[in-house]
Parts: sequence; C-alpha cells; structure tokens
Amino acid sequence: MSPDPFALTCPRPLVPDTVQMAHGGGGRLMKELIEGVFLPALGADPQGLHDSAVVEAGGGRLAFTTDGFVVHPRRFPGGDLGELAVYGTVNDLAMAGARPLALAAAFILEEGLPLDELAGLVASMKAAADRCGVRIVTGDTKVVDRGKGDGAFITTTGLGLVPAGVEVHPRRVRPGDAVLVTGDLGRHGIAVMSVREGLAFETPIASDCGPVHHLAAALLEAGLDVHCLRDPTRGGLASVLNEIAAAAGVAIEAREDDLPVDEAVATACEILGLDPLYVACEGRMVAFLPEAQAARALDLLRAHPEGAGAAVVGRVLDGPAGRVTLRTSLGTARLLDLLSGEQLPRIC
Amino acid sequence: MSPDPFALTCPRPLVPDTVQMAHGGGGRLMKELIEGVFLPALGADPQGLHDSAVVEAGGGRLAFTTDGFVVHPRRFPGGDLGELAVYGTVNDLAMAGARPLALAAAFILEEGLPLDELAGLVASMKAAADRCGVRIVTGDTKVVDRGKGDGAFITTTGLGLVPAGVEVHPRRVRPGDAVLVTGDLGRHGIAVMSVREGLAFETPIASDCGPVHHLAAALLEAGLDVHCLRDPTRGGLASVLNEIAAAAGVAIEAREDDLPVDEAVATACEILGLDPLYVACEGRMVAFLPEAQAARALDLLRAHPEGAGAAVVGRVLDGPAGRVTLRTSLGTARLLDLLSGEQLPRIC
Repeated sequence: MSPDPFALTCPRPLVPDTVQMAHGGGGRLMKELIEGVFLPALGADPQGLHDSAVVEAGGGRLAFTTDGFVVHPRRFPGGDLGELAVYGTVNDLAMAGARPLALAAAFILEEGLPLDELAGLVASMKAAADRCGVRIVTGDTKVVDRGKGDGAFITTTGLGLVPAGVEVHPRRVRPGDAVLVTGDLGRHGIAVMSVREGLAFETPIASDCGPVHHLAAALLEAGLDVHCLRDPTRGGLASVLNEIAAAAGVAIEAREDDLPVDEAVATACEILGLDPLYVACEGRMVAFLPEAQAARALDLLRAHPEGAGAAVVGRVLDGPAGRVTLRTSLGTARLLDLLSGEQLPRIC
Repeated sequence: MSPDPFALTCPRPLVPDTVQMAHGGGGRLMKELIEGVFLPALGADPQGLHDSAVVEAGGGRLAFTTDGFVVHPRRFPGGDLGELAVYGTVNDLAMAGARPLALAAAFILEEGLPLDELAGLVASMKAAADRCGVRIVTGDTKVVDRGKGDGAFITTTGLGLVPAGVEVHPRRVRPGDAVLVTGDLGRHGIAVMSVREGLAFETPIASDCGPVHHLAAALLEAGLDVHCLRDPTRGGLASVLNEIAAAAGVAIEAREDDLPVDEAVATACEILGLDPLYVACEGRMVAFLPEAQAARALDLLRAHPEGAGAAVVGRVLDGPAGRVTLRTSLGTARLLDLLSGEQLPRIC
C-alpha cells in the first residue's frame, strides 16, 4: 500500500484539564474522553463500542442503551426535547437490530420550570412512544436549584430484544459494502441552530426528528445481510463514517454528488460556515450492506415516507484503515476527518 | 371502623405552577407531580409503582429501573456521587427481588468540571460495580454550558433478572407482616447535610451509602416469604411506610423504641430540627414479611456486616388504609404523614 497522502495533516489538539463543550460534541475530544477516561476506568473494551450494548439474558439477547438529552432550546421546528428523548433512544436500539421492549425516563428539572411546559414535554414523549409501539415503564425525577440546571434534562434508557440471527455490528462492515442513508442530511442541527441564533429563513427548516426503527426492521425482515446500522446524530454522517472505518479497519469513500442535502439546509450551512456532513440528524439511518443488495434496500426504504429520500452515498474500501474520503463533484478527493468537537453544541 | 382521629389534620398545600425543590423530595409534592403530571400523560398505572418496573422478555422477567443522581456536594463522608449512582440503582433492582445483570450510565457534565474529578467519580463507579458483581455496559456523555448544570449529574439505569418464583411487590404486604430495617436510619442525609452546612461534629457522621442486594438475596434464597422490599432513600423510612400503606391498603405502626438511630445522628437531627425518620438512607433496606419469619430474617441479615444493625421496627395492621403511626416511648401514638417536600434537597 502506498503511504497515506493525508497522514500528518491533523495535529492533535492540546488536551485540556477541564470538561469542554467539545467533549460532548461527538468529535475527537469526545473520543479522547471516552477512550481516555471512561473506558479504562470502567474496564470496558473500546472495540465493543456500539449504539447499544447487547446483554445475554435467559437465552435471548437484549439491547440496552442510554442517552441524556439536553437540547437547547427545548422546542424547535419539527420537534421538542420530549420526542427527541424517545426517538433518540428507540433509534439507538434499532441500530443494534433490536425491537424496542420498554423505555425508562429520568428527569433532572431546574427549580422554576413551568409545570405546564413539563406536562407538554411528557405528552410529547407519550405520543412519540405510542408511534414507536413502546411504553415508558419506569422513571425518576430530581430537582436542582435554580441556576444549577437548565429547565429540563431527560435521560432515556431503552431495552430491546435482538431477534435470533440478527448480527448488526461495526466489525461486520467489509470492503465492497455500500453505504446508504435514509434521507437528507443536517436538518436537525440546522433547525435547532436557526432558533438559537434567531435566524429566519424564507422557508423554516424543520428537524428530521423521528423514528427509524421501522426502516431498520424493513431491511432486516426482508432478509438482507445488513452488516451495520448507525444513526448520524452528534457529529453527523462524517463522524459515523469515521467511527465505522476505525472500528472495522476499512476505508470509506463518500460521493459528494450522491449525498442528499436539502437546498435550504445547504444555504443555511453556507451562511453559518458549517459543513452539512458534520451536522446532526435525528431521524436518519446509515446502513452498510453488500453492494449487490443496495438496490433492493433502496426500494424497501423508499416504501416508507421516512425513507423516501434514501440514497446510496458511498462504498467501503480495503484501506487505509480508518480513512474516510469524499469524492467531490470535481473528481478530487478530500479527507473527512473527525472534528475536534462539534460545530453545534447541545443539539440533542 | 371508628372515624380516623387523624383525619383533617393535614391541609393540602396550594399547588404551585412551577417546579419546586420539594417536587424532588420524595414527599407529597413529588407524589402529586408523579400522579398529576407523569402518570396521566404516560398512560401508566399508579398502582403499578415500584422501585423497578418488571418487563416480561423471552420467557424471563427483567427488572428495569432508572435514577438520576444530583447529590451536592459530590463527595461526602462515606461516599461520593459515583458510588451512590451505582449502589442506588443496584439497590432498586434488588428491591424488586432481582439480581443485577448490567448497568448503563449517562453523564451530564458542566463545562469546566476538572477532568481529574471526573476520572475519580468514574473510578468510584467501577469499584462500586465490582463490589456488586455487575458491569457498566453502556453510557452517554453530554456537556452543558457553564452555569447551566452543576458539575456532574449521573443517571444510572439497571437491568436485572427476577428469579422464578420471586414475587416482591407492595400489593403483597398484608396485616400481620413484620416491618424490618437492616440498620440504623438517617446517616446518609445527615452526612451530606453536615458537609453542606459546614457542621463539624465531634465524630464525623459517615453516610451508609452501600449495597443491599446481598441482604435481599439472603432473605429470598433462604426461602422466606418476602412480601415487599424497599430502600428508604428520599423521604426516609416514614415515606416508605406511607407509600406501602397506601399501595397495599393497610395501616402500619412503627415503634419508636425499636427504631435504630445512631446517637450522633439523633443529636445532629436535634440541632438541625430534623426528624430522622424522614432523613434518607442510601444503604438500608426495609423488608415486609410474615411476623412468624421475622426472627429467622433477623438472623440472616445480621450475618452480614451491612445487616449487623437489623431490627424489627413495626407491624402491618388491618387499617385505616394508608395510615402510618408511630407508637412513642410514652405509649402515645402520633401520625407519620408524608411531608410536603423533603427537609434535605439534593441528597441523592
């Protein structure tokens, strides 16, 4: 293999000694926090990282996943904190190939939060859970002093059942796999950012916030050999491709011309100086499966309204391991590296 | 039945329209929040309330429980936020009669938290999990802006397996049951409070923060007919007795002379104007089982260091449903009602 022309282009940032916003951004600093602090202390295996843990219990395999939701503002075009907290966790279960069994919700509320608003968030959670056919079966509430929280944080944990025979995991990704996305990219981050920054676009950009578990089920139930599923939340598609390329020891090439990005989102990104490939989605799925099954997978995904914009956007290559490139419209290649942090903090 | 002499002594507080510290205190306001906001919106059944939900999966029964931990300060005599977050959740699983299978941990960190301190908390979690024989298998990290959090909040969720034949639930509590506690009461709340208020006692009072799952297992594995288990955290023993009396439709009488309260804790409570029966424990268990099995249960509990101070402290009566009384040293009775809030916010 020839030397990697992209090597040495990304000097490591100095490691800070306090928590930075970027530690929560899905980029390099977050990876360093997880690999440098959490995994060694917990005695966990970084190769086993996945959106859900899979636990053997009573002869079956359970998917188990937890996520804190701190989105600011709590209401944004296309969704709110409550539904985000449900869809985000249901989607993480689905990314392990699991059917959702039950959810738990833990609230950390700031003194002074209007009870009406809380009731609205809880009603959103119920509606979202109903849509996913899952129940919130247990919960907890803590209250912190005014100025020691930010209205409401919700941590949802999901329990799911992985059907027999389903093996969806980054380590199964291999050269020759096609990379699919189920719809256009970057909506959620831009929707949240536009409210936060007071940006008014001619057409308001709505978040894609929604469930993808039925899209995952459509591929699995059709018997396709789905190697890996991932939802491109914090850090967007580019971060997912980097994680998978590193975990599977492969290279991935995405094709700029095939990446679905809505024109309004692209314009907003230009104005804000953002790259839509790094902007979070909250209702999209990335799927890796053999190239020969890609056309069938597209048909299955497009049969659902949430998958109408599905596209094949790239392919998995032999190496160099961990490298992600973008083949641009001009035919050149550019490196899609992990960002240090995230351009948009607190979008989920 | 004669009219209840205690009726009408507790006027309802006016319902506020924003979240109050007392909404997180384990008392009446919290009950109102849960029954008035969460349960109706989620379509859940208040009679089903328990420390853990039990979910049927693949022929087995899984216990599923979640808890946010926001204790302030994060380090206190006898423990810290990290171990509290592990023991609290393991104990909640045990209160459903379950063996812990796996934990999930979600961190909400405030920008600026020293990474050293975070590493210390995570190391505490690992040590606590090892002591309980359980692993933290999945997690999440979010970062919020400086001033929008309070250092670190940790939400831990537990997954456990309920052994066949075990049926531990408030609805099984019945007249004739003995009420046992596994050790002295109120340590945790006073330990936290003494640091927070800068109180110096001659002998520092250490929190009882620790696991009780092995105490629960000792009773269950000996084949005792354990009707209900509960850990007296927020709101202390008095709140547990009130919840159980209401859920089971029974009355409960506790005997002041039999309640184990350490002298230093009793003195601190006097100084602070607190009633130790409402002060949180984080390493104690309350057990309800037939009076005839109480002596054997005491022997089993006292065989463990954490159960050395076990005592029978009361009994379950026919009615009036939901009433909890304390038989004082003077032979009189006083009502142990739910407090509106909690005397000590953010003790867990």
